[in-house]
Amino acid sequence: MEISRSNEMWIDAKVVHGILVEFLRNETRKVGFERAVVAVSGGVDSATVAFLAAEALGPQNVTALWLPYKTSSAESDRDAKAVVSTLGIKSYTVDISPQIDVYFERHRDAAQMRRANKMARERMTIAYDYSAATGALVYGTSNKTELLLGYGTQYGDMASALNPIGDLYKTQLRQLAQELGVPKPIIEKAPTADLWPGQTDEGELGFTYEDVDRLLMHMVDRREPDEQLQALGFAPKFIQHVRKLVRNSQFKRRLPVIAKLSERTIDRDFRYPRDWGR
Amino acid sequence: MEISRSNEMWIDAKVVHGILVEFLRNETRKVGFERAVVAVSGGVDSATVAFLAAEALGPQNVTALWLPYKTSSAESDRDAKAVVSTLGIKSYTVDISPQIDVYFERHRDAAQMRRANKMARERMTIAYDYSAATGALVYGTSNKTELLLGYGTQYGDMASALNPIGDLYKTQLRQLAQELGVPKPIIEKAPTADLWPGQTDEGELGFTYEDVDRLLMHMVDRREPDEQLQALGFAPKFIQHVRKLVRNSQFKRRLPVIAKLSERTIDRDFRYPRDWGR
Repeated sequence: MEISRSNEMWIDAKVVHGILVEFLRNETRKVGFERAVVAVSGGVDSATVAFLAAEALGPQNVTALWLPYKTSSAESDRDAKAVVSTLGIKSYTVDISPQIDVYFERHRDAAQMRRANKMARERMTIAYDYSAATGALVYGTSNKTELLLGYGTQYGDMASALNPIGDLYKTQLRQLAQELGVPKPIIEKAPTADLWPGQTDEGELGFTYEDVDRLLMHMVDRREPDEQLQALGFAPKFIQHVRKLVRNSQFKRRLPVIAKLSERTIDRDFRYPRDWGR
Repeated sequence: MEISRSNEMWIDAKVVHGILVEFLRNETRKVGFERAVVAVSGGVDSATVAFLAAEALGPQNVTALWLPYKTSSAESDRDAKAVVSTLGIKSYTVDISPQIDVYFERHRDAAQMRRANKMARERMTIAYDYSAATGALVYGTSNKTELLLGYGTQYGDMASALNPIGDLYKTQLRQLAQELGVPKPIIEKAPTADLWPGQTDEGELGFTYEDVDRLLMHMVDRREPDEQLQALGFAPKFIQHVRKLVRNSQFKRRLPVIAKLSERTIDRDFRYPRDWGR
């Protein structure tokens, strides 16, 4: 679990901690907001974001949304509540089961993936509704591993205003979580989307975060070709599989494609930053 | 209503028609899809997209989703069904009232805007669920006027895979709708989000599409400064108001901001097109 300074996934967690607290504080205030909302799942990603948010804005300005479905585990519930009580932030609970179930009444045979995506999007709509009702920015909780693999729901958990952890691989995020004092059981439990009993990310993906993070760092950040990746010990099939996941999920990391007709088309020639003019 | 060739909002609708049909056909097929889904509202924007889709992919490959809320007007219902029957495309209806109402049971005092945004996002989740269930790409229906003014719901009606009309102002889109043969009552009725009886876009915005489209074209596409816009006859207050709407809604036209920590950050140094590698 402990990552030494000689490991290439090591980060200077103290420095990253400081950068991310400043990032959240500055980016939130300069668009006129003082408050934030984070959908917590009981996992280490959302816990880390809640810890950063509480430090950046003060615990009284952060709300944790706990949005369970009827099959959410007792462990997730316990861990989500531990985040809230440790930080002394506000929390707001909405059981999403009624909305989800009434929709799937007419699609009783819907595959698990459809249900999972509908739930992720329902949670997004609640975070944004809470945001509008209380003037709180929605903070995102997708890490770099998930974003690059497309292991998330577009317009669901991948949607937010600000994402402090989207440039940290899972194995790097765990180092930051330790530095922040996120409760140990949350850091150490097996990552899961909690969609069915015993589900784990690594079981579903078919590889470990430790392996894929190291591969992604060499493949994406360092832009190394296959031969070099193989020389590092990665199996050709694994390399090929991960390259495919990254490529095939690119649509989730981009905006809708607009047919170009004019001199200035949105997201092409008209691309100011989000806080343009503030 | 008729726009003459000497009007600066005039488009060569025949040429645009051809470009957009090719755009949809190519962009859909090159990502491995044959089918599309369009959420129709009874309005001219979604009708136009449905017409383009039916021509690009064949009517048998297009599904219109009609997703009314209990307060949706009889006129919207009639016009949405007219699109389906004129084109001979498939349609699929889901009443979103149960999901919306069960959520707002605990927020009985929620403002109209919160309800409208929740509905727009619920419709998005259904379009994406239908997309996953049937292998159909979600086509977007936001026009350039709406997108620039931020007159739409982020992660709701503004979310899609491909948007054929996002670079056409409303007054240009009407010309295209005529060229395509969209039923006249749909083209000629007052644009409305149909959230309450008698609501119209122009009533809510406080200006006409004719005026704002001309202003936006000079302001955005031609990048003209205020003095020049005033010389064209636009009131300083109107110019200021529209500039503010465009600037303050920029966040809706961009992706979440990720805190930069590494050499390659998503949406900064890692920005391949959506169909990268296809």
